[in-house]
Amino acid sequence: MSNEAQVLSGVGLVRVSQLAAQLRVDSIRCSTSAGSGHPTSSMSAADLLAVLMSQHLRYDWDHPADDRNDHLIFSKGHASPLLYSVYKAAGVVSDEELMTGYRRFGSRLEGHPTPVLPWVDVATGSLGQGLPDGVGVALAGKYLDRLPYRVWVLCGDSEMAEGSIWEALDKASYYQLSNLIAMVDVNRLGQRGPTELQWDLDAYTRRASAFGARVLEINGHDLAEIDEAFTAAEEGSGGQPTVILARTIKGRGFSEVEDKEGWHGRPFPPDMAIRAIAELGGERDLIVRGPLPPGTGPDTEPDEPGTGLGTEPDMPAAADQAHGHPETPAPGAPAYSLGEEVATRKAYGDALVALGADLPRVVALDGEVSNSTYAMEFAKTYPGRFFEMFIAEQQMIAAAVGLSVRHYIPFASTFAAFFSRAYDFIRMAAISQANIRLAGSHAGVEIGADGPSQMALEDLAMMRAVHGSTVLYPSDATSTAALVTAMAHRQGISYLRTTRGAYPVLYDSAETFPVGGSKVLRSSPDDAVTLIGAGVTLHACLAAADQLAGDGLRARVIDLYSVKPIDTGTLAAAAAATNGRLVVAEDHYPAGGLGSAVADALLEAGVQGLRFTHLCVRDLPGSGSSQELLAAAGIDAGHIEAAARELIAG
Amino acid sequence: MSNEAQVLSGVGLVRVSQLAAQLRVDSIRCSTSAGSGHPTSSMSAADLLAVLMSQHLRYDWDHPADDRNDHLIFSKGHASPLLYSVYKAAGVVSDEELMTGYRRFGSRLEGHPTPVLPWVDVATGSLGQGLPDGVGVALAGKYLDRLPYRVWVLCGDSEMAEGSIWEALDKASYYQLSNLIAMVDVNRLGQRGPTELQWDLDAYTRRASAFGARVLEINGHDLAEIDEAFTAAEEGSGGQPTVILARTIKGRGFSEVEDKEGWHGRPFPPDMAIRAIAELGGERDLIVRGPLPPGTGPDTEPDEPGTGLGTEPDMPAAADQAHGHPETPAPGAPAYSLGEEVATRKAYGDALVALGADLPRVVALDGEVSNSTYAMEFAKTYPGRFFEMFIAEQQMIAAAVGLSVRHYIPFASTFAAFFSRAYDFIRMAAISQANIRLAGSHAGVEIGADGPSQMALEDLAMMRAVHGSTVLYPSDATSTAALVTAMAHRQGISYLRTTRGAYPVLYDSAETFPVGGSKVLRSSPDDAVTLIGAGVTLHACLAAADQLAGDGLRARVIDLYSVKPIDTGTLAAAAAATNGRLVVAEDHYPAGGLGSAVADALLEAGVQGLRFTHLCVRDLPGSGSSQELLAAAGIDAGHIEAAARELIAG
Repeated sequence: MSNEAQVLSGVGLVRVSQLAAQLRVDSIRCSTSAGSGHPTSSMSAADLLAVLMSQHLRYDWDHPADDRNDHLIFSKGHASPLLYSVYKAAGVVSDEELMTGYRRFGSRLEGHPTPVLPWVDVATGSLGQGLPDGVGVALAGKYLDRLPYRVWVLCGDSEMAEGSIWEALDKASYYQLSNLIAMVDVNRLGQRGPTELQWDLDAYTRRASAFGARVLEINGHDLAEIDEAFTAAEEGSGGQPTVILARTIKGRGFSEVEDKEGWHGRPFPPDMAIRAIAELGGERDLIVRGPLPPGTGPDTEPDEPGTGLGTEPDMPAAADQAHGHPETPAPGAPAYSLGEEVATRKAYGDALVALGADLPRVVALDGEVSNSTYAMEFAKTYPGRFFEMFIAEQQMIAAAVGLSVRHYIPFASTFAAFFSRAYDFIRMAAISQANIRLAGSHAGVEIGADGPSQMALEDLAMMRAVHGSTVLYPSDATSTAALVTAMAHRQGISYLRTTRGAYPVLYDSAETFPVGGSKVLRSSPDDAVTLIGAGVTLHACLAAADQLAGDGLRARVIDLYSVKPIDTGTLAAAAAATNGRLVVAEDHYPAGGLGSAVADALLEAGVQGLRFTHLCVRDLPGSGSSQELLAAAGIDAGHIEAAARELIAG
Repeated sequence: MSNEAQVLSGVGLVRVSQLAAQLRVDSIRCSTSAGSGHPTSSMSAADLLAVLMSQHLRYDWDHPADDRNDHLIFSKGHASPLLYSVYKAAGVVSDEELMTGYRRFGSRLEGHPTPVLPWVDVATGSLGQGLPDGVGVALAGKYLDRLPYRVWVLCGDSEMAEGSIWEALDKASYYQLSNLIAMVDVNRLGQRGPTELQWDLDAYTRRASAFGARVLEINGHDLAEIDEAFTAAEEGSGGQPTVILARTIKGRGFSEVEDKEGWHGRPFPPDMAIRAIAELGGERDLIVRGPLPPGTGPDTEPDEPGTGLGTEPDMPAAADQAHGHPETPAPGAPAYSLGEEVATRKAYGDALVALGADLPRVVALDGEVSNSTYAMEFAKTYPGRFFEMFIAEQQMIAAAVGLSVRHYIPFASTFAAFFSRAYDFIRMAAISQANIRLAGSHAGVEIGADGPSQMALEDLAMMRAVHGSTVLYPSDATSTAALVTAMAHRQGISYLRTTRGAYPVLYDSAETFPVGGSKVLRSSPDDAVTLIGAGVTLHACLAAADQLAGDGLRARVIDLYSVKPIDTGTLAAAAAATNGRLVVAEDHYPAGGLGSAVADALLEAGVQGLRFTHLCVRDLPGSGSSQELLAAAGIDAGHIEAAARELIAG
């Protein structure tokens, strides 16, 4: 319940309506000043935010890291003028910063919100992501933190066309997230014209209800109605998330643009801004603070620990939070015997279980394939820390991002190919500065009979391109287990590529695998060629080296388990030692994978005299056995050996 | 209406039940023989398919390319044993092929269906894509072909968790696709256990109804009920798509596995298969043909022309269909004056309008940003050939794939960043051998104030990695217009990256721009360095060259408008002429873009002596002006000039 649960009336109403006018005026002022931005999309939602921030959002603006704070996510990130105007009204952003910073170079008041601001949980601006992210935060609140904070998400009506919104509502109702409140600003107009459903609130109601939400339809400009709806939302509804459908008018408050097309994403020219501000009663400088979270206030300590899994005051980033050492296996980590055949996906599951014992903040998610990715091992051991996302990869990534907001250490898994379903979410997670770990199984043609739809052949390219990402591709169970531990300690997006089949363990459990390193598995002073592989192709490189050795040809073999960052030094040294002769073999399409990573690194390092053969999957594969498909793609031991011989002879 | 619209009864029922048993038996036989596959997922849907293929699917199996045929898409592609058993029952695949080909190397009976088979429209196997693809085919049927074929899509219940299914139903109802019939095989069990909604058919009904479908709940093992539902679906429903929710039992027909967990994606061992086949009454070899499309039959010509936009008999691939020449601008193509400042996204719109006049099969789609991508120009000129997909990028790509199935030449546009939302669909489109064209506007930090959520900085990496893709990145309006024409004639996935801002026209309209080519814009015998750019950075390269020329330093400048395929010859010649000194500047993250494309090409070609400087976006950008952000990223003229000087001095 809000601290002011009675229906808003009288003096309160007047004050809130003044605040709403200020939010509109400031949205206009900052966007006109910047010469860009979305004032009309802000004005439609100003009444919602005025009521929310003054009456319902339980937030300690002086302690944004307090675990007990409510969360406010602008899924319609283009309404950033409104969000920043809320920050001004809360007294945490000055009018000067708003007017001179908004959308300017070097300013934290970016065109769309990002977590460079301490009050922003996640970057938004790619529509349909804020609500799924909010599901992740709400999962943390209900199941892990076990704190009574609420997650308020402002959605646009245009973004209701994104499937991810329905993945979010589906999961929110499945997980009974009554702590999640979506406020949909139904202003009828998108960017280029009317939305699909315009003001058909009943259609939205049918949909959201069918997906399990409790739905409240309101006039989004009636402050008392808004207040009543928020109060109802706070009171919960037997485990349902709440969707508040607010019928609003785009540009509300300035008669020249109200409900008019052609004003999306356009600031008002100065003369119009003057008229708009006049119509809205001029500038104001109200500072308004709403309720504080329960248990906080002048007489209590800020940032009181939560009741969940060891939530700490002023929670640092998860990576710092993880104890132990990234290059040391977790206590109880699996140990494998040299030569034993173990699938790296199996080692992922083993390692995750061990990590879960060591780090209580490790949580896992999977897209209904946990028996294939082996995340099921974690789910069995720690059922309370595992979230089944069913076949909804976008929501799976978003949930991981939301859990990262709450300082958990999420590992999300599915077939590597299916992370492509959520690439926009991964891209945005990087902008959100989220710390999430992704494990993709069933890489490449090695999977065999299932065929190309299930084969990840673009995943290394996709993941390497992500800002600040870590891309790991182990070849054996020992290195997999070590890298899973390392991932828990990484910032940003970490990706682990695992293989379907079982291959021999190559390393003793005492071996360390620093991120950015590599392993030289065969080396002699007489090496004539370097063979570089990872995953299944490393085993092929080793077999090729053995074949070559039979003819007295020595090959250096490098296990490039860290694709990004990459071990340029070892690669350059190998190139120098083997007269520039390099064979890179990978179970991936030509562009952007292992071969490109090596090429990029060596060219950037200025390594000269390279003679480079790149073996990879060049044709569209079909079904078959692993060996048939690896041979057909030209990435098996025989082809590596032949390429090496050709380089040596050449 | 079906040719046999009366409710199935008597002899018909017996015959269909024998067919259903055959489909189950053959699904078991082929998967057991292959040692992999999904028999239980096939058995649950066997009754649906038996009724469909014998009574309702209007399909001339001898002329699969006949425009009047119904379409059958297995959105649950893992039920391929069932699909291929249907082909056997239709007499187009022999029992021998089924038993020795299924999932084998080199066979067309792949683990999941792909269009290497003439009866398969699209590759499936990544769940939640077949229904969206079907929306595209149904759009073509209703609005372009104007033919009465129906699109039957078999969906799994697990895939109803994918947001893309709801994007599909949303668009199907928005576009009143009563020719689309989704049959949902609600067998309650997913891969690792029960589905989210299990047998709660009412929940599915509420959802599908709310999204505008007419919903029929049936017992999916009652042949008469199935028949009745299909008849009702065929009769149409005032513009609504039909969703048939069939309550089924996974593994139906073999009591040992019926409704049991642990049997997803597992063939029966031989002894179990023997028992299963016995329980199902043994092997059969029925050949069953259902109704033919209206207007076809023994006395009519196959492949009668459709009534739409010039549909031709035995329609060849769109690329062959396009008349004109790919390197010649369409008649009425826009012409731009040298030096005139025109945004490439604007030129895209201009060129698409001209192309639309030349090629009546060109159609366009956009994700609610057509005023930004300039697809709106096409929409205004050819409203009947434009499909607004609102903010549903996955469905947009799927619709393009479906239109490509019907031999249209689709161009789909949105902000380049938002194609990442549909990467799995693009990946699968390549496996579908679809011919689709994608135009992504607002590339890179150049967009300025909107910030990183709107900046495509991974798109070149993502698109280059796609099998068989073409990646184009023009720098001026003339080359953009030419490349749009070229795209219409390309097979596979073609991607055009356009820029937000207006930059000078560099080329006369007589110039040609072959895919795989490049342009040398500055060249002399004394060139000391090569500057390589595309889009905004090409203009920066030209400015840098001018600055260098002021000091008597000559720079070769290459417009790398074709990123894939790439003009290795021109790049190698430039490297040779400029002592290996190359500066590549791109508005993209480091991995997988222009720099990687150049590095990959030159290393593969064995070019020696390279001194390579790669300027790209290395830090997470924020907001600002184009110039500020280009400078901050180190990819503006000043940085290119400095890098060139350093290379020359080094």
